[in-house]
Amino acid sequence: MERVRTIEVGSHVGERVRVAGWLHSLRQMGGINFLIIRDGWGTIQAVAESEAELSPLLEGELSVESVLSVEGLAVSMPQAPGGIELHNLQIEVITPVAEAPIVPLNKPRLSANITTLLDHAVITNRHPARRAIFRLSAGAMAAFRSTLSARDFTEIQTPKIVASATESGANVFKLDYFGRPAYLAQSPQFYKQIMVGVFERVFEIGPVFRAEPHDTTRHINEYVSLDVEFGFIENHFTVMALLREVIAGMLKALSEYYASELKLLRVQMPAVPEEIPHVHFSRAQELILLRYGTDVRGEPDLSAQDERWLGEWAQQEFGSDFLFVTGYPMRKRPFYTHPDSERPEYSNSFDLLFRGAELVTGGQRLHLYGDYLEALEKAQLPVEPFETYLEAFRYGMPPHGGFAIGLERLLMQLTGVPNIRLTTTFPRDLTRLTP
Amino acid sequence: MERVRTIEVGSHVGERVRVAGWLHSLRQMGGINFLIIRDGWGTIQAVAESEAELSPLLEGELSVESVLSVEGLAVSMPQAPGGIELHNLQIEVITPVAEAPIVPLNKPRLSANITTLLDHAVITNRHPARRAIFRLSAGAMAAFRSTLSARDFTEIQTPKIVASATESGANVFKLDYFGRPAYLAQSPQFYKQIMVGVFERVFEIGPVFRAEPHDTTRHINEYVSLDVEFGFIENHFTVMALLREVIAGMLKALSEYYASELKLLRVQMPAVPEEIPHVHFSRAQELILLRYGTDVRGEPDLSAQDERWLGEWAQQEFGSDFLFVTGYPMRKRPFYTHPDSERPEYSNSFDLLFRGAELVTGGQRLHLYGDYLEALEKAQLPVEPFETYLEAFRYGMPPHGGFAIGLERLLMQLTGVPNIRLTTTFPRDLTRLTP
Repeated sequence: MERVRTIEVGSHVGERVRVAGWLHSLRQMGGINFLIIRDGWGTIQAVAESEAELSPLLEGELSVESVLSVEGLAVSMPQAPGGIELHNLQIEVITPVAEAPIVPLNKPRLSANITTLLDHAVITNRHPARRAIFRLSAGAMAAFRSTLSARDFTEIQTPKIVASATESGANVFKLDYFGRPAYLAQSPQFYKQIMVGVFERVFEIGPVFRAEPHDTTRHINEYVSLDVEFGFIENHFTVMALLREVIAGMLKALSEYYASELKLLRVQMPAVPEEIPHVHFSRAQELILLRYGTDVRGEPDLSAQDERWLGEWAQQEFGSDFLFVTGYPMRKRPFYTHPDSERPEYSNSFDLLFRGAELVTGGQRLHLYGDYLEALEKAQLPVEPFETYLEAFRYGMPPHGGFAIGLERLLMQLTGVPNIRLTTTFPRDLTRLTP
Repeated sequence: MERVRTIEVGSHVGERVRVAGWLHSLRQMGGINFLIIRDGWGTIQAVAESEAELSPLLEGELSVESVLSVEGLAVSMPQAPGGIELHNLQIEVITPVAEAPIVPLNKPRLSANITTLLDHAVITNRHPARRAIFRLSAGAMAAFRSTLSARDFTEIQTPKIVASATESGANVFKLDYFGRPAYLAQSPQFYKQIMVGVFERVFEIGPVFRAEPHDTTRHINEYVSLDVEFGFIENHFTVMALLREVIAGMLKALSEYYASELKLLRVQMPAVPEEIPHVHFSRAQELILLRYGTDVRGEPDLSAQDERWLGEWAQQEFGSDFLFVTGYPMRKRPFYTHPDSERPEYSNSFDLLFRGAELVTGGQRLHLYGDYLEALEKAQLPVEPFETYLEAFRYGMPPHGGFAIGLERLLMQLTGVPNIRLTTTFPRDLTRLTP
């Protein structure tokens, strides 16, 4: 008999159907056996009223996570989970499992501590709550792409092994490339800019690598970056307008297509205002002094506390989960950042805060060759390692800019999980290289 | 005035429009100046009948690749390229360029040798013929995804920094991970299998890294792998049936949405038979002896020449550009390969040949924990580095399999470019780490 997915059983009431999947749980109550079968999409309850029906399980002394084929009559049953269950079972064992996993997968919450959970991610990733996060991750990538493709952006894939560090010599992983030193790309920044010269509008979804020796709940050393770069912009406000569209497109798609995952994870979906409020960096520091009595004026960057305060302000003042902070000081931004032409100590860059924490960084880049030479000199960087990059500007680049969204950071702030490691299938941190 | 894209000018005949882009070429003929403006999508001719119109270019002694804004009247003109051109121009310089690039971009063919071309990829990637290949690449990725999403596959992103080599210790790039040795993933093989335990059906598009010291026209050391893995299969023929759908979906999408790129590159699009012919490895070797008089029986693999002969045979016998060769000998396949239960010296694996060269490798994998332990022992591999991987099998995996398509290999064989380096924006090879 052709297999149906667990989520399809509801449309076969009164028929015999066959599902296949993992034995998620097995409970005995008053002589009746309740099996939950989990497949790649959901779960279904199957009820064995006789020992005979269960004999393939009992004979092999099988454990949960055994892979089974279960044929049965689909019966509407209001008290069953999902309102439907299978009766009169015919069970076949596809893959027997002898012992239960160290972390039980059939409790609503995974009770293990994070170390155990990540050490056994191969198995714990099967838990419905873990799976829901990874599904949102897939949905976010798909919506990022479709929002940009609809705006005529072209997808690119750029090299991850590079000859020199993108922005500075620090925090890069070094590797041996046929006897020569090479590095893992910290970001596709230079390549996406170069590709604006080819396609004007580009995006990339790919891994980036940061050898930052942080051990925090907000850092991992390999993550997925959703990168955008495009030309013929006015200034960073053109970039911010696109970013608003992208974020709105992603959240809309998640709401529409991932309702059950959002419900399972109890996600409060944010609204994206038609226009996201924005505040200049210098004004933001004044606001913090006025409202919170802390004088951070003169600081070159915002602290995590500053971001929380500003998030609170945006919520109270505009009812917005999102806030753009614009015009970060040039001295804290990378050399390719475009200055504000009126106040050149500030930049045409921005951060997007989401619920009081930085989610996206972006801005306008320099586009004139001469400006790059000057900027490198000012940053006391040699020209030579940047020579092929500079070729793009030597031969004509339009005003351009872009941004990068950290996929894991987005998921963390959206779902409220307490540790970024929980947003990705197999995290890499200071000590974790496996699984 | 709002900018329109060059490809949209045709729908504005009789109106004044503004385009913006790069000065692709500038020719003078009989006192009339013909400009070609290139933007991210195409080109448009603009005609200056007076020196005054051209003065912004002439005053600055500007070169091709300057970035311009050109406003003009859209006029239908059969002898113009594309049948349309702009008259009565008003030109503004956005970014001036003083000297022309070392490789001319405005000839139909790039005349530079491949070294020059790749050394200056930052610029030569702007050439319409180069750009067309990268567009096909984006289209192939999009169609791969949509074909699989329509079949309920979930997209995953798995780590590229790994603790041990995937299949063997050879040919991996080694890196320093906070003082510990680590490697760049040769393939997402283990992770995609593990994720079958989570989602049943998964795919990934991402970089893979091979430290193979080959210097051939068919190898690069970092490439994009289109990976698929799924559970509850019958055997490798289930995998081959899906692969046929994926290839057909990709080629159909390219034909439908990338007609101008295919035309520019003079691509002969192959037909994908409803059922791709297949031949067993042992039978393939017999065929080679019969038809070509060379006895390769007993060889554990097919040579490039063998593949060409088989491609020729598939073409003559079935009129097919595609041929599955099944059942490669176990001794040449990785340890996780599932054997043919009737003839255990052969495997449930396959290669897909396209125009006489291997394009895809795939097959059924082992799924029983005990079989893995045996296979590792047989391959004389220690269990320890595979311990977390083996957890997946210890706790129940269904019969499963998958395949990996090399994106660059596909583009090379489809477009007929003579060197795989030409199919990717910034190739990495034995000596090339930049741009």
